[in-house]
Amino acid sequence: MTVAAASVASLAELRALLRGLPGPDAAALARWQAREPQLTKPPGSLGLLEEISRHLSAWQGRHPPRLDAVRACVFAGNHGVAALGVSAYPAEVTAQMVANFQGGGAAINQLCHANGITLSVDALDLDRPTADFTRGAAMDEGACVAAVARGMAAVPPGTDLLAVGEMGIGNTTAAAAICHALFGGAASDWTGRGTGVDDAQMRVKIEVVEKGVAANASDDPLEVLRRLGGREIAAMAGAILAARLARAPVILDGYVCAAAAAVLHRAAPGALDHCLAGHVSAEAAHRNLLERLGKRPLLDLGMRLGEASGAAVAVALARAALACHTGMATFAQAGVSDKD
Amino acid sequence: MTVAAASVASLAELRALLRGLPGPDAAALARWQAREPQLTKPPGSLGLLEEISRHLSAWQGRHPPRLDAVRACVFAGNHGVAALGVSAYPAEVTAQMVANFQGGGAAINQLCHANGITLSVDALDLDRPTADFTRGAAMDEGACVAAVARGMAAVPPGTDLLAVGEMGIGNTTAAAAICHALFGGAASDWTGRGTGVDDAQMRVKIEVVEKGVAANASDDPLEVLRRLGGREIAAMAGAILAARLARAPVILDGYVCAAAAAVLHRAAPGALDHCLAGHVSAEAAHRNLLERLGKRPLLDLGMRLGEASGAAVAVALARAALACHTGMATFAQAGVSDKD
Repeated sequence: MTVAAASVASLAELRALLRGLPGPDAAALARWQAREPQLTKPPGSLGLLEEISRHLSAWQGRHPPRLDAVRACVFAGNHGVAALGVSAYPAEVTAQMVANFQGGGAAINQLCHANGITLSVDALDLDRPTADFTRGAAMDEGACVAAVARGMAAVPPGTDLLAVGEMGIGNTTAAAAICHALFGGAASDWTGRGTGVDDAQMRVKIEVVEKGVAANASDDPLEVLRRLGGREIAAMAGAILAARLARAPVILDGYVCAAAAAVLHRAAPGALDHCLAGHVSAEAAHRNLLERLGKRPLLDLGMRLGEASGAAVAVALARAALACHTGMATFAQAGVSDKD
Repeated sequence: MTVAAASVASLAELRALLRGLPGPDAAALARWQAREPQLTKPPGSLGLLEEISRHLSAWQGRHPPRLDAVRACVFAGNHGVAALGVSAYPAEVTAQMVANFQGGGAAINQLCHANGITLSVDALDLDRPTADFTRGAAMDEGACVAAVARGMAAVPPGTDLLAVGEMGIGNTTAAAAICHALFGGAASDWTGRGTGVDDAQMRVKIEVVEKGVAANASDDPLEVLRRLGGREIAAMAGAILAARLARAPVILDGYVCAAAAAVLHRAAPGALDHCLAGHVSAEAAHRNLLERLGKRPLLDLGMRLGEASGAAVAVALARAALACHTGMATFAQAGVSDKD
C-alpha cells in the first residue's frame, strides 16, 4: 500500500485502518542481527545506538536501512481554548511562527539544516480555531477527519525517517485534556507550564482541562481526539499512521506530539511500534506519558519548544547509529581478537 | 599563551600550570546573554542546547562561537594489570584497535565522519605496558609527565571543540583505582563491568583495585595519576589541560576519561569548568563520578565503548546548539509577538 492510496473519509475508516497495520520486517531484522555482533566493539557497547539501527532496519523493512530522505512535518493549528488565557503567548503567535518557519528563522529550521532534514510545514485553517472544548466538542467529525487526512498526505512515499511536531498556542492544554481523558488520574497530573505560564494561568489551565474532560468524556480514543484535540494534533496522528503504512520509522517530538500518538496507541495496541521517542521534554507530564506508551526517550535535554525540535535533534542520533552499523569493520576484516 | 608554548617537564610544573588557569570570557558571555533572549522561542525552551551555546561562547572567548575545527583525540595505552585477568579481551586488542582506528573501521571513525570531526589517534608506548600497580607505582614520574606532555601536544592551536577519549585493555580497572583513591568509599563502588567481564572476573577486578589503592595511596591527585593511572589516562589529562589554555571547550567521553579529568578537578577546583560531560555511560560508577565532578551528562544512551564515542555523538548537540543560537531570527526580525 502506498501512502497516496491511503486516506480516510471518516473516523470509522480510520478505525478500520488501525486494525490492519503492518508489522516489523523479519528478514531485515535478521540481517541486522547477523551483522551487529560482528562489529569491532563489545556486544551492546553502543547502547541505544544499536537499538536505533535495529529499529530503522525493522520498520523500513530494509537492511542496511537508509537515511537519505529524512523529513520533519510540522503541523500548526489554533485552539478555541487559547481565548481562555491558558498560554503565555497570544493566539496570533501561531500564524506568526508559521511565517517564521516559512522564512527560515525558527529553531526547527536551524535544526533541520544541521541534521539534513527536509522541513514541511502545514498550517491547518489557522483562521478557524477549534471550538472551546469546555462548552462542547472541539471539532465535528468532518474537521477532525480532514485534519487526519492532511497529516496522512504530508508523508511522501520514499520517506526514510519522519520527525513529527507542532505549533499551536493553547495546544498543551488540548494535549493535557486528551491525556486526562485517555489515562484518567487528575487534570493536574497531565497539565504543565507549556510555553511558561505563571501560577495564576496554571490554575486556569487545570480548570479548563477539568471542564473539557467533564464535558467530552468518551471511551473511544478517536472521539477523544475529535472532542478535545486540535487540527494539528489530528494531523500528527495522521502523519504517524501514514508513516507506518509507508514504512517510514517515526521520531516523536514532545508532549503534544506524544498526546496525538497516545490516541493511536489507545485505539490500537502496537500502533506506535514504529515510533521512537525523540526526547523527554521539560513539560512534566511528558515523562509519565512516555511511560504509558512504553517509550524510552532518546534525549533528555530539558527542551520544551515543540516544532519537532526535539525530534530533529534526535535525528543526529539516528545518523550516528546508522553510520556505526553500516560503516564499522567486522572483527574478521580488522583482524581484532573477539571476546574469549 | 599558545598550546605550543605550554608543556610540562615535571609534576611540579604541571601543578604550577594548574594554579594559573584562564577563566571564562565575560565579554563573550555578555554577548551571548544579549542575543539569546531575543530569539523566537520561549526563554529557556531549548534547555541544554542553550547551555551548550553559552558554554562555547564563554570558553572559546568568542561570540558567536565557531565549530569549524572540531577534533577528537583518542589516546591508547597498555596496562600491567591487564595480565591479571581484569578484562574480557586480551591486551593485544589495544594495538589491534589502534590499527582499526587508523584503518577507519572503528565506531569512532564513523561517528567522526558523521559529525564533522577530525580524529587523531595517539598510541603511547603500547609495547611498554605500565607496571602492575598491585605491586607498586604504575609509572615513574618521567613516564607520567611524558604522557601528559603527549596529550598536551595533541591539541592544535585553533581547535574550536575537543572530544577526548581512550582505548586501553584494562583501563577501567585503572580508572576505578584512581576514583577510589581520589574519592574514597569501597573499591566495589568504583568498579564496573568494563567491556563486559563475568562475575568471577569482576571479583578479581575489585580485588586488583583494592590492592592497587592500598599499595599506592596518596593525598596528591597527580601522584594518584602516576601511581594508578596509565599513559592514555595521563595523556587525556594533558589534553584537557591544553584545551583550557588554547580556549578549546572540551567534551568528556566515558568513565576512563572522567577519571583522568577527576585528577585535574581534585588538583585544582575549577580545572574542568571548560568541560561538558558528553554522556553518562553504562559503567555504573560513571554517574557517581560525574556527580562528584558537578557535571550533568548531555546524553544517556547506555553506551560503554570508550574511543571518545560518546563525546563524538554529543558533538551533534553542540552543532545543534550553535545552529540555533546563531541562525534563529529574533522576535523583531520575524515579527513575532513576545511573551506578555
